Amino acid sequence: MAEPEQQHTITNTWGSQSWTHLSSVRHQSPLIQCITNLVSMDLIANTLLSAGASPAMIHSVLEIPDFTPHTQAVLINVGTLTPEWLPAMKAAAGVANKFNKPWVLDPAAVGASGFRLKACLELVELKPTVIRGNGSEIIALSLASTGNTKGADSLHESSDALEAAKSLAKSSGSIVAISGSVDFVTDGQRVVGAHNGVQMMQKITASGCAVTALIAAFVATDPTHAFEATASALSVFGLAGEIGMGLANGPASLRMHLIDSLHGLDQETVVNRVKITSFS
Amino acid sequence: MAEPEQQHTITNTWGSQSWTHLSSVRHQSPLIQCITNLVSMDLIANTLLSAGASPAMIHSVLEIPDFTPHTQAVLINVGTLTPEWLPAMKAAAGVANKFNKPWVLDPAAVGASGFRLKACLELVELKPTVIRGNGSEIIALSLASTGNTKGADSLHESSDALEAAKSLAKSSGSIVAISGSVDFVTDGQRVVGAHNGVQMMQKITASGCAVTALIAAFVATDPTHAFEATASALSVFGLAGEIGMGLANGPASLRMHLIDSLHGLDQETVVNRVKITSFS
Amino acid sequence: MAEPEQQHTITNTWGSQSWTHLSSVRHQSPLIQCITNLVSMDLIANTLLSAGASPAMIHSVLEIPDFTPHTQAVLINVGTLTPEWLPAMKAAAGVANKFNKPWVLDPAAVGASGFRLKACLELVELKPTVIRGNGSEIIALSLASTGNTKGADSLHESSDALEAAKSLAKSSGSIVAISGSVDFVTDGQRVVGAHNGVQMMQKITASGCAVTALIAAFVATDPTHAFEATASALSVFGLAGEIGMGLANGPASLRMHLIDSLHGLDQETVVNRVKITSFS
Repeated sequence: MAEPEQQHTITNTWGSQSWTHLSSVRHQSPLIQCITNLVSMDLIANTLLSAGASPAMIHSVLEIPDFTPHTQAVLINVGTLTPEWLPAMKAAAGVANKFNKPWVLDPAAVGASGFRLKACLELVELKPTVIRGNGSEIIALSLASTGNTKGADSLHESSDALEAAKSLAKSSGSIVAISGSVDFVTDGQRVVGAHNGVQMMQKITASGCAVTALIAAFVATDPTHAFEATASALSVFGLAGEIGMGLANGPASLRMHLIDSLHGLDQETVVNRVKITSFS
Repeated sequence: MAEPEQQHTITNTWGSQSWTHLSSVRHQSPLIQCITNLVSMDLIANTLLSAGASPAMIHSVLEIPDFTPHTQAVLINVGTLTPEWLPAMKAAAGVANKFNKPWVLDPAAVGASGFRLKACLELVELKPTVIRGNGSEIIALSLASTGNTKGADSLHESSDALEAAKSLAKSSGSIVAISGSVDFVTDGQRVVGAHNGVQMMQKITASGCAVTALIAAFVATDPTHAFEATASALSVFGLAGEIGMGLANGPASLRMHLIDSLHGLDQETVVNRVKITSFS
Repeated sequence: MAEPEQQHTITNTWGSQSWTHLSSVRHQSPLIQCITNLVSMDLIANTLLSAGASPAMIHSVLEIPDFTPHTQAVLINVGTLTPEWLPAMKAAAGVANKFNKPWVLDPAAVGASGFRLKACLELVELKPTVIRGNGSEIIALSLASTGNTKGADSLHESSDALEAAKSLAKSSGSIVAISGSVDFVTDGQRVVGAHNGVQMMQKITASGCAVTALIAAFVATDPTHAFEATASALSVFGLAGEIGMGLANGPASLRMHLIDSLHGLDQETVVNRVKITSFS
């Protein structure tokens, strides 16, 4: 990564990169299989459609062998996990690995129960390309992954979770992203911060799930640059939220304007307003 | 069906028919049992409510014997099918048949897996009143229904699928509808095209599922004219999309304005703007 | 409760009480575990978030022992009940009782089947703090709870259901709320009517489910005044609907503006416009 004095240049490069990623999604319309929680399905599908991708909510374990090989990426989100859903998640991750396709894990509410934590650890063993969560989720998963039994509460800022994210990235081999007032992305060595977004997005249920899905779409079109694609997806989604916020009167209209804005983003806006900076 | 020179007269008749169907739904408020995919439940329920119908998402096989006899129509959509859901779908179709009520099948993503295709074929054997899908879904289902093993991809235009739809209609006895830039409806002999709608509706997840639900509501109030009710529902939904598009800035605001417009449609608009033409 | 001549004073008191409850939710952000139907998850989560609460849709029976003790209230809604979901509902109600936390039951479509009615009766035995339904639901549940086998249809006005609600409240020990053109709340002795709301809210799927969730959030912050918290939640939600209706063009825009308005409600509006009156 660049030195601090090159910050301005870097920012411009990230804008162009983000635009390239978004354009690729629009042109290639990657098929993203989503095995996700029941709350998030509508918003995830509409986020992917508005970005130009093709969502497919297919979660029966019977369908994985036939369907998953045809996808460009797999999204797995454990938000409303039950034991019946876990085999399909593992099977889809396995097929993604076998066919060398990226897959992305959202360890939603991983700290909610021992059952959920164990399931997420088993999924991490299947080597997700990217893991995205909020600070407390990443801390809980990182501590458990590395055998650290210290508890985690839900009040951690994303910056506090950065060391946990680096440890998780190193132990898992995954790109790890932490959502917060600034989003961080790390591969265990490099760290960038994605600064776009507005606070009210936290008042939209499944907005975190939706950006994880967008990461899957961005990574699908450029799997060899998963680090850059992840940071770009976070900033593009945040930028859509910023533009949406200018038109919104509350969380529900923000949700609508965010999706509309994501659909309508143009090159000039993305290049000029994406703000990603190096922290390593 | 009429001769080509009577096209103009026909168009007017279809507008009046469509208004009659929509008015019947508003006045009778038919109870539509929906056994549908997890992504579509919210949009389907709100579509039915805005059209004047009463949706009921009841899918436990234990409830079919008590509940289904009280409905006016059943909608079955396999979009997120798992083996646990299939018995309730079959049971509900069976009760609908026994009580002489219409039921409508949406074979969503029928080509996604062998499991799903087999399930849809079993459902087609239970004689749906109407089957609605996109071109590739209808082709896949038609080929499999008629024992043709040629594969189907997802790029077929609705016009290409017309022959497949006619074959499926003949072999199944169902009205078959194909969504596309023009929607087609056939009973195996007659063919009409429903021209209303805007392209951006494809960027709204479950918009296809929603129009299938609307077909169920329209057919519920006039089961002996399922062909006409199906074409009317397709055009009325498309017309609501056209009006919504005039107010929308993207897919999310289109979704909102479409539902608002469906709720607010008046006689003059429906009679003058519904565009259905004969192709047979 | 006050005498009729104190009506004006009471109205003012209810406005202040409602504001106090809403402020408590905003400041405490109570964690509400929702085991709810598949149609309502998105609207319930967004309603709770916009009111300031923290929703958690966690429904695996394996997670109840770990997670439920950390919640401030539990919401149980049987709208898309299957036998697989019932054990988790009972377990969560049991944990709520053991830890002395309020839990709220929405007996959605309780009359749809014998299976559902039996499940609701079993849940009522677990002593919900509050039960909220429409008139026909409360009548069906009350008749069955008290061993009365007279049937119930779906056309009862909320005022007709008042005697049934009183009986149910007495036999169950729950606060019982009936939604309708006027909402009623009773503890078996006292009765108040919450007058806020607009008719078009019935055209928004899961709007009833959403207000039940809001009741759970209000009661969570003041469990010793569940009667007052329930009436306040009903009026605050109705008031958000009234304000939303001033901006809406149909059911879908009403849904959006309702959530925005709930998020933006200020003290003056709540104090002046909440309308709750005594009927006892």
